[in-house]
Amino acid sequence: MKEINVILYDNFTMLDAFGALEVLSRLENHTIGYYSLQGGVVVSSTGAQILTRPINSAQKCEILLMPGGFGTRSLVESEEFIACLRELAENSLYVLGVCTGSALLAKTGLLDGRQATSNKIAFTWVTSNGENVKWVKSARWVNDGKYYTSSGVSAGIDMALSFVRDVHGEECALKIARVMEYVMDFDNKKDPFAPAT
Amino acid sequence: MKEINVILYDNFTMLDAFGALEVLSRLENHTIGYYSLQGGVVVSSTGAQILTRPINSAQKCEILLMPGGFGTRSLVESEEFIACLRELAENSLYVLGVCTGSALLAKTGLLDGRQATSNKIAFTWVTSNGENVKWVKSARWVNDGKYYTSSGVSAGIDMALSFVRDVHGEECALKIARVMEYVMDFDNKKDPFAPAT
Repeated sequence: MKEINVILYDNFTMLDAFGALEVLSRLENHTIGYYSLQGGVVVSSTGAQILTRPINSAQKCEILLMPGGFGTRSLVESEEFIACLRELAENSLYVLGVCTGSALLAKTGLLDGRQATSNKIAFTWVTSNGENVKWVKSARWVNDGKYYTSSGVSAGIDMALSFVRDVHGEECALKIARVMEYVMDFDNKKDPFAPAT
Repeated sequence: MKEINVILYDNFTMLDAFGALEVLSRLENHTIGYYSLQGGVVVSSTGAQILTRPINSAQKCEILLMPGGFGTRSLVESEEFIACLRELAENSLYVLGVCTGSALLAKTGLLDGRQATSNKIAFTWVTSNGENVKWVKSARWVNDGKYYTSSGVSAGIDMALSFVRDVHGEECALKIARVMEYVMDFDNKKDPFAPAT
């Protein structure tokens, strides 16, 4: 059974979470858990109220998914949240960060010395949260060890499909892309949103 | 104020709803309402529990968004739901259907004589729900009057960006695509998932 834990918080970006999760949810034999720092109702960037369990009740999992969004700006200052995220990430087989979710992962210190990327518009802010991370400015997504990080919002879909290809094979990834009618490009160096410099 | 109503139901496909909604939510001055037939908690295809209000409390809106998913297979048989959807759609300035959401819209009769498309894998089932609809087999999305319908899952993002371009201008659509880091192609005839025949 593939256990997927998604970490939510007020003002997370809807597509950051549910683009990548749409891909992962199409793996066979999986369960998905929704968590937030305190548990209870979390309100997305689009005003959706989603029920979550407290993060300290989350168990070890195969895939930890950390979406981005404007809510990261305050969450990154929560020592309690960052400590919980660090422990969960350490206990997860794979850790996937989307968009500014990379800032939260960077803050745990677990990306230190590793390559990672993030949303291009928020890049300066994100990278300030991890001075020892090897930030990659031009990449649709980056993989380093058990960590995958993506550029902004919809790039999380590409990252998740790339993760599926790496772990479960290209046939599986292409099948999921086809069912989702998603036009996938596995070349993560093609990043039309990277800054020109 | 742009009022956007999203209609949810058990086992709706997460990205059907939240891909298109991610685009629409980036329009200025909007409010988003989440509705289901009875109201209360709706469980998505990915197991997310989302709070909704009863559909009969929904007001006239600018944009009505009807996502698809496996839950449509039973929902299409609910005369109560189809009647509510028909009334809401009639009272909406624009109606956007994603994937098998087109089957529900077709069932209202409001697509009769109009061009529409849907998920390619479920195409035979979808089209059986609207014999008088001019179904388009090969199209990423289709616009006819106030109705927009898209192919499967991620094609809802393309449809929503196309809708924004049509109503609010190409600059607005391209700005949203850029912020979402979404690689958009406005040619709706490019449909790599259409059947070869």
